[in-house]
Amino acid sequence: MTTFYSNSIAEKEITLDENDSRHAIRSLRLKLNDSVQVVSGKGELFHTKILIDHPKKTVLSIVKKDLFKADIPLVLAFCPTKNNDKNELVVEKAVEIGVTKILPIFSQNSERRKWKTDRMNKIAIAAMKQSGRYWLPEIIDPMNFDDFITTCEIQNRFIAHCRDQEKVSINSIKEPKKPQLILIGPEGDFSKEEINVALKNQFKAVDLGKNRLRTETACITALSILKID
Amino acid sequence: MTTFYSNSIAEKEITLDENDSRHAIRSLRLKLNDSVQVVSGKGELFHTKILIDHPKKTVLSIVKKDLFKADIPLVLAFCPTKNNDKNELVVEKAVEIGVTKILPIFSQNSERRKWKTDRMNKIAIAAMKQSGRYWLPEIIDPMNFDDFITTCEIQNRFIAHCRDQEKVSINSIKEPKKPQLILIGPEGDFSKEEINVALKNQFKAVDLGKNRLRTETACITALSILKID
Repeated sequence: MTTFYSNSIAEKEITLDENDSRHAIRSLRLKLNDSVQVVSGKGELFHTKILIDHPKKTVLSIVKKDLFKADIPLVLAFCPTKNNDKNELVVEKAVEIGVTKILPIFSQNSERRKWKTDRMNKIAIAAMKQSGRYWLPEIIDPMNFDDFITTCEIQNRFIAHCRDQEKVSINSIKEPKKPQLILIGPEGDFSKEEINVALKNQFKAVDLGKNRLRTETACITALSILKID
Repeated sequence: MTTFYSNSIAEKEITLDENDSRHAIRSLRLKLNDSVQVVSGKGELFHTKILIDHPKKTVLSIVKKDLFKADIPLVLAFCPTKNNDKNELVVEKAVEIGVTKILPIFSQNSERRKWKTDRMNKIAIAAMKQSGRYWLPEIIDPMNFDDFITTCEIQNRFIAHCRDQEKVSINSIKEPKKPQLILIGPEGDFSKEEINVALKNQFKAVDLGKNRLRTETACITALSILKID
C-alpha cells in the first residue's frame, strides 16, 4: 500500500496536496473507499479511506491512528560539498539510516554557500516514507561554524577530520542509546583553528579508519556506525 | 601531487596510458623531471620523475618504491539494482570504505541482469586513488546466486535481508580483524528459498537496524560497520 505524507491533518480527515491527490487518483487509480496510509512525520500513522476522490484535492477519512516513539537524537552537522547532488545523497541516505536532524554548516574552507532547505525537505520526506520511518528529520537552515560550535547542546558530540592529531575510533566511543552528534568537514577539511575551537567546546575528535573518505562518504559511514547498536 | 594508476610497470620505468599522459602533460602541464606518484593497485607506490614528457605516451623513471600490506579481505556480494547509477555509487563508496572484492550476484528477484565489469573497474581505480589506498579491489563478473552461495570460502559470511526471521545485529557479530563477506539482496529482497539455501551454507543472517534500507544504502552501511574496528 502506498504511504502518503501530509502536514494538513484535521481531527477526522486528511486532505492530500495537489501532487499527492493527482498521484493517488490519476497514477494509482485509487477510488472511493480505497484504503490509504498517511504519515504525519510526527510519529503518527493514519489508516484512512478515500472520502472524496478528487484528483486535485483528495480527502481521506481517518479510520485508525497508530503512534510511534521518537528516535533517540542522532544529529548530522556537515559542510555541504561543491557538488549539490552529493549533498542530496547525504540527506537521502542520512534519513534512511536514521538521522533525526541535519544542520548544514559553512566553515572556512567551504566552497559551497548555497543550501535549499525546501528541496532537502522534500528529499527527506521521500526517504522517510521509503525507509518506513514515522518521524520526519528536521532540516535546519545553514549556520556558520562559529555560531554552531558554541551553541551545540548534545553531550556526545564528535568531530571527524583528516588532520594528523589525536583521535579515537568512532566505534569505541559511540553511544547509540544516547543523543549523539557528528560534525563532518568540507572537501578541504576544517582548519586547524576550527578543530581547536571544536575541541575547546567539548567535541571529541574521531577516526573513521585510515582511508581518506569524501565528505558524503564520511557522513554516511559515521551515521551508520553511530546508529547501529 | 597527483597520483596515477598504471598496470604497465617495468623494472625501472613506467609508461602512462594515453589518457593519463594527456592529463599529465596537457592538463597538469607537467614537464621533464617533475615528480609523479604512481600506484600499481598491488600494494606498490612508485615515486618517479618524468623521463619523456610525451602527451600521448609519457614515460616515468622510477626513483623509489614503497610497499604496503594488503587489507584484510572484506568482500561485498550484492544484487545490482535497476538503476545503474546506484550500482556505480556502491562500487565507488565500497572502495573508499575499504572493500577488497566486489561480486555482483543475480538472484531470483534481480530485475537487472547487466553489469559492465570494465566500467566498474575504472570507478574502482578512481576511488582507490582518491581514498589513498594501494590495493585495487577485485571486481568479478556476475555470478548466479546458486553458484555463488555454494562456493563461498570466507568463514565469516553474512546475509542481510528484510524478512521476518531470526537475525543478529551486524555490529555484535562483526570481526574486522578477520576476513568477512556480506551478501545484500535486490530491491525485491531474496526469496525465502534463497535465504534458506544461504543459511544451510553457513551464512549468518544479520540485522542492519529497523529502518528499511535501499540496496545501495544497505551495502554502504554494512561495509562501514564491518570495516571500522
